[in-house]
Amino acid sequence: MANKPSIPKGTRDFGPVEMAKRNYIFNTIRSVYELYGFQQIETPAQETLQTLMGKYGEEGDKLLFKILNSGDYLSKIEDSELTERNTLRLASKICEKGLRYDLTVPFARYVVMHREELQLPFKRYQVQPVWRADRPQKGRYREFYQFDGDVVGSDSLLNEVELMQIVDTVFTRFGVRVQIKINNRKILTGIAEVIGAADKIVDITVAIDKLDKIGIDNVNAELREDGLTDEQIEKLQPIIMLEGTNEQKLETIAQVLASSETGLKGVEETRYILSFLTSLNNEIQLDLTLARGLSYYTGAIFEVKALDTPMGSISGGGRYDNLTGIFGMPGLSGVGISFGVDRIYDVLNALDLYPKDSLQTTQVLFINFGEKETAYCLPIIAKVRQAGIRAEIFPDSTKMKKQMSYANAKQIPFVVLAGDNEMAEGKVTLKNMETGEQTLVSPDELIAKLS
Amino acid sequence: MANKPSIPKGTRDFGPVEMAKRNYIFNTIRSVYELYGFQQIETPAQETLQTLMGKYGEEGDKLLFKILNSGDYLSKIEDSELTERNTLRLASKICEKGLRYDLTVPFARYVVMHREELQLPFKRYQVQPVWRADRPQKGRYREFYQFDGDVVGSDSLLNEVELMQIVDTVFTRFGVRVQIKINNRKILTGIAEVIGAADKIVDITVAIDKLDKIGIDNVNAELREDGLTDEQIEKLQPIIMLEGTNEQKLETIAQVLASSETGLKGVEETRYILSFLTSLNNEIQLDLTLARGLSYYTGAIFEVKALDTPMGSISGGGRYDNLTGIFGMPGLSGVGISFGVDRIYDVLNALDLYPKDSLQTTQVLFINFGEKETAYCLPIIAKVRQAGIRAEIFPDSTKMKKQMSYANAKQIPFVVLAGDNEMAEGKVTLKNMETGEQTLVSPDELIAKLS
Repeated sequence: MANKPSIPKGTRDFGPVEMAKRNYIFNTIRSVYELYGFQQIETPAQETLQTLMGKYGEEGDKLLFKILNSGDYLSKIEDSELTERNTLRLASKICEKGLRYDLTVPFARYVVMHREELQLPFKRYQVQPVWRADRPQKGRYREFYQFDGDVVGSDSLLNEVELMQIVDTVFTRFGVRVQIKINNRKILTGIAEVIGAADKIVDITVAIDKLDKIGIDNVNAELREDGLTDEQIEKLQPIIMLEGTNEQKLETIAQVLASSETGLKGVEETRYILSFLTSLNNEIQLDLTLARGLSYYTGAIFEVKALDTPMGSISGGGRYDNLTGIFGMPGLSGVGISFGVDRIYDVLNALDLYPKDSLQTTQVLFINFGEKETAYCLPIIAKVRQAGIRAEIFPDSTKMKKQMSYANAKQIPFVVLAGDNEMAEGKVTLKNMETGEQTLVSPDELIAKLS
Repeated sequence: MANKPSIPKGTRDFGPVEMAKRNYIFNTIRSVYELYGFQQIETPAQETLQTLMGKYGEEGDKLLFKILNSGDYLSKIEDSELTERNTLRLASKICEKGLRYDLTVPFARYVVMHREELQLPFKRYQVQPVWRADRPQKGRYREFYQFDGDVVGSDSLLNEVELMQIVDTVFTRFGVRVQIKINNRKILTGIAEVIGAADKIVDITVAIDKLDKIGIDNVNAELREDGLTDEQIEKLQPIIMLEGTNEQKLETIAQVLASSETGLKGVEETRYILSFLTSLNNEIQLDLTLARGLSYYTGAIFEVKALDTPMGSISGGGRYDNLTGIFGMPGLSGVGISFGVDRIYDVLNALDLYPKDSLQTTQVLFINFGEKETAYCLPIIAKVRQAGIRAEIFPDSTKMKKQMSYANAKQIPFVVLAGDNEMAEGKVTLKNMETGEQTLVSPDELIAKLS
């Protein structure tokens, strides 16, 4: 007796309905990226550990799935190294490869390896699964898809503008109302400079990022713990609690940052980007608390949240100035956005926003009444399919009821019946599964009705 | 200085042009499957080793990529087990998961785990990468895609008929002339029965399968080595060397197999399937030497070869009667086909069969002349994109020559130029990159010309 099969924890099977929904999401995002001239690339699931290790912090290294070397993976290992049981060090000797942890590092590796053949600026999108040996929990998986778009090799802020337009168009097409938040790392740096705590920029952004969650008092307490003086913290207050329109906020910030060249550059960049985004369908808001905890952004920072259902960030990104430096190719600037497709899936489910035709597979099922009827139906089905209509004939001539439940289960909207009467007339009966209405039609009329 | 990055041997990056070609292949096959009511599923890249081990023979077990357990993977291993250096046994203790080796075993596992929610017959397609730790060589990779379609839960031969129609339609759409070969395992079994060597069926099919490669003399020699008598081998000759139309061949075989119930069943099945396939675009040929070396087929066996370029099998499949038995769910019959997408890619390259528009990405590039011109162009680009036209503006206002080479490198067929003259008239100049022709047009005319 075979064992009951299972799948690794934190992984999922996707059935036909889930795949139809996911394909709708993927195709929508893909088509918008392509409207803007982005081109797709794919990279292998496996990367060398040399490529992966040290790129995601110490915690990230632990979360990498490592692949055991093929063949005699112990041949170069001494007994003493085995019995020493230093699992991290041993792993690096018995494993040379790991599974992709995100799409950013493989993309950087790709750009460096293919730099000779790339035409800059290079606008690429990539949609592939990534793997993390995280503790699985609700909404957190060990295998999940990322959908990234990046432009490398151009400093122009038009790229930021277009990425925001892409975000706006994608969510408009989904019918999801979102709030787009924008910030700029240079403004944050300027703030740190002006209060005389330039070395504390990371601490400050991390603390500011928590404002929504822990409130101003705790943020201030954290800043104090980080070593800021009361005076410095005091100076920060108006900046953190900034109110008004984007233009009003930028006005105030520009005054506060008058002495910081970097800070003013950030204000100017943000003003420029926003000046081209006045006709978005969704609101875009300057939010100084947005830092995304990431120290690698150097310019604009974006984040997108759904307005009508509680969910974390469903999209985010920003500009980074040294994507490929880790692989020995400095000076290449990039800006990118990542769509959180698993969360978008949950949002569209919660708001029931899938267009009906995106979930429909087969458009018409021919009922199987037996040999003779099948021989009559097959040429008609062939014509129907040639017209581009997705059609099935039930393969076995079983009970009508079973065939009808098959149509219902697959949500097939029309059924064709052809018995002796229909065959004598050279016609078929078309049944609308929703209304129950039946019509006697010729094959050509059938195609016209289903098209 | 960072190390020069590389990718694991036997794996590949796919750049924009390769991805466009691959997407054309995937989308074509996908749309034909969907015309026939097949629905997509996806399974995780990782499966438990319990699911994978023992399903692909001893050699297959060695070719599985195994994933090192997370955390302290040595905690339950004694020192003695480590120093014993039994690498296979140790691997099974420090690894619980492996990478998908094909799509068939995960599909069987899927069907068993989801049987309650599946409406039978279940027609699924699946297109995902698989991984094998094979020695990489020309045309053989450690990561490659499979594109499978299977129908489970129906014994009807209409499924075989439709799979052959799918194959025929797919290659017709590609513009590749193919030869479809069909055989039936029951005929092979019948032959073994009639010559009184029922226990030698696997040896016989394996030897017959080599006819094309090693010739009749060596096949006979191999059969002799397999323990067949001269008399038995003599009896096999007319069968192996069979000539004529499909109908003539079936006629002859039916006479030879008159005493074998199984053999006659195979003849009858093949006749039935072929009777519905008289109007294919490609030739379908009964070929008794077709066995695909696989012992798990129980009925029809198919294989597809390209006619106009040398290449092995580019598609194949057949009926199997016990897909899910390995996971404790016996009695479920299935029939399936697998498209060898990497080889199809090579065939389409060799014959240069990609439709021009499948490779085209951006349709029009707006040249960037500076701030003022960009501000003029952006609303026009927005309208162009709203009309569904894939458009870019070069993000930086660099030299005209650089922007033009970008358009050429990306094979963008049209370029838009808008300077003072155009702006004064509220128009743009549209340049055809192939002919060099330039036309002054309004934004609406621009859209009409590009649509």
